[in-house]
Amino acid sequence: MRILITGATGFLGTHLAAHLHSQGHRVGCLSRPNSALPESIADLPNWPVDDNGHGFKEALNDFAPEVIVHLAALYVAEHRPDDISPLVRSNIEFGAHLLDAMREAGCNAMVYAGTSWQHFRNEAYCPANLYAATKQAFTTIAAYYIDSAGLRLLELDLYDSYGENDPRRKLVNILKIAAQSSDTLPMTGGEQHAHFVHVEDLSRGLELACELVCKSEPGQHLVYRLPSMGVVSLRQLVTAFNAARPERPVKVAWGALPYRTREVFQPWEAAEVLPNWQPKISLHEGLCRVRADANQDKTVREFAEDE
Amino acid sequence: MRILITGATGFLGTHLAAHLHSQGHRVGCLSRPNSALPESIADLPNWPVDDNGHGFKEALNDFAPEVIVHLAALYVAEHRPDDISPLVRSNIEFGAHLLDAMREAGCNAMVYAGTSWQHFRNEAYCPANLYAATKQAFTTIAAYYIDSAGLRLLELDLYDSYGENDPRRKLVNILKIAAQSSDTLPMTGGEQHAHFVHVEDLSRGLELACELVCKSEPGQHLVYRLPSMGVVSLRQLVTAFNAARPERPVKVAWGALPYRTREVFQPWEAAEVLPNWQPKISLHEGLCRVRADANQDKTVREFAEDE
Repeated sequence: MRILITGATGFLGTHLAAHLHSQGHRVGCLSRPNSALPESIADLPNWPVDDNGHGFKEALNDFAPEVIVHLAALYVAEHRPDDISPLVRSNIEFGAHLLDAMREAGCNAMVYAGTSWQHFRNEAYCPANLYAATKQAFTTIAAYYIDSAGLRLLELDLYDSYGENDPRRKLVNILKIAAQSSDTLPMTGGEQHAHFVHVEDLSRGLELACELVCKSEPGQHLVYRLPSMGVVSLRQLVTAFNAARPERPVKVAWGALPYRTREVFQPWEAAEVLPNWQPKISLHEGLCRVRADANQDKTVREFAEDE
Repeated sequence: MRILITGATGFLGTHLAAHLHSQGHRVGCLSRPNSALPESIADLPNWPVDDNGHGFKEALNDFAPEVIVHLAALYVAEHRPDDISPLVRSNIEFGAHLLDAMREAGCNAMVYAGTSWQHFRNEAYCPANLYAATKQAFTTIAAYYIDSAGLRLLELDLYDSYGENDPRRKLVNILKIAAQSSDTLPMTGGEQHAHFVHVEDLSRGLELACELVCKSEPGQHLVYRLPSMGVVSLRQLVTAFNAARPERPVKVAWGALPYRTREVFQPWEAAEVLPNWQPKISLHEGLCRVRADANQDKTVREFAEDE
C-alpha cells in the first residue's frame, strides 16, 4: 500500500513509519515546516504542511496515497487558556485541511487515532478534558466529508502507549528516571486503571486498520480500539515495572499527590477490538525491554534535564 | 439582566442588542478589534477580542454578564480550501475561548445560535456543509464545559432571517435588487422549503431564551428552535414578495440555475419550539415592511455595487 502518515515525528508515528516501511509498504510523511524526521526514518519522503492548509494539496497529488494514517495531535492533559488555540489548530483545523485535500485528490481512506479520554464515566461521548473534546470535534468535522464525499474513515481508540526509545515524559519514563536515583517518587493514590500497549502491537494494529479501511464501503465510519492484554492499576504497573528489573526498584510515595479533577479510573471498553488483532507483547515482556534499553535511559535523562 | 453579545456587528446581533437595550437590560458587546459597532448601538460598551483569546477575560471580568448570547459566526454556504481556517477559527476557536473565559469568570449561562443546516436529510446530526459541521463542533467542545464546569447552554436553531435594514446578500435582498431593475432573476427550481423569520421575532425569542437559560440547572444543555408561522417554498416566497408590492414585481427565471450539491428541501423540525414563544409577524407583513423600507434599497444597492 501507499500510506501517508501525519505525526511521523512523534513516538508512535516514527515507529509506525519504520514498521510499515519494513513490511514493504511505500510510506510518505506530512510534517510541520520546522520539524525534521527522526534519524530512523529520515530517508522517507516528507512534505511540509501548515495550519493554514498550505502543502496538503501538493503532498496528496505528489504521493497519491491509498490511505492516510492521521496521528498528528497536540496532547495537553489539563489545559491553560494559552493552550486553547494550539489545541484547536492542531487537533481540528489541521485535520479539516487534510480531509478537504483528500476529497480534492481522490484519496478516500483514512485511519485516525481517537482516545479513550473521549469517554469519561464510560459514556458514549463525554470528554475528560479539552484535548479529548478537540479530538471528538475532528470526528464532528469528518462527518461532513464522510457523508458528502464518501470518505471511508476508521477511528482507532488508543490507550497509553509505551516502548523502547520513547522520548516522551510519560509515566513509564518517569518511573525509569526515578529508578535511576534513590529518590522516592510522589504519586497519586494509584487506583487509576489503564491499558498499557506496546508500540509494536500498536503499529501492527494500525497496519491492519489500513487494510481494513481500504476494503470498507464509501461513506463508512468504523470505530475500533486497541487494548492491552488486561487493564492494570497504576499500583500494579509499578509492581510489574519493579519485577522487570528487581535489582533497581523504584520507590513510590502513594497518595502524595492529589488525583486530577476529572481523573479516569476505568478505561472505556465499549467499542469492539480491531478484528484479527491482539496484543503479542505482555506487560512484563514490554517492561523488561524498556528497562534493558540503555539508550532510553539517556534520552529520558536528557529531556528530564531540559525541563 | 446583564447580557453580553458576540456578533453584535451582524444583522441579527445589531437588532438584538438594540432590542435588549430598549427592554431595559444592560447590554455589552464583544467584537473583533477592527470592527466598529453600527450607529444604532454605537453607545453600548464594547470589548475587542481576537481568535487567539486576547480580551475575553478582561471583558467578562469588567462587564460581569449574567448571560452571554453567542451569535458571532462565519457563514459560507459552499466553502473553498481558503475558507477552512477562517471557518474553524471563527466558529470553533473563538467559541472555545469564550467558554473558557466564562468558566474562569464564573459566568455560567449562554444562549447560542445553531442552524438547521446541521440536520441534512432531517437527521439528528448530518451537516449540509462545512459551515454546519463547524457549528456542530462548537457544541462538541461545549460538552466539556457543560460537564466539567456546570455551564448552562441553550442552543437556538435558527432558520432564514430577514427584516428591514438588512445589509446581507441574502435572498430577500437579492429579490429587492432585481425588482428595482427590469432584469429577470435566474434562480434554481425553487422547490426548497424554508422558514423565513422576521428579525423582531428572533430578537424576542433570544430575549426569552436568556430568561430560560438563567433558570435552568447547572450542566443542562437545552435545544430549541425558532420557526416561522409556516414553511414556504422559494416559489411561494417570491409570490408573497410580489404580493407585498404588486406594482413592482420581480421577474424570476425558475430552473435557470442548478440546485446546490447538498440542497436542503425540507427544514429540520424535530426540536421543540422555544416555550412561550411564537412568531408575531406574518410573512406578508414582514415583506411589506421590507419593501416599504427605502433605506434598505440604498444599503442593498451599495453592497451590490461593492461586489
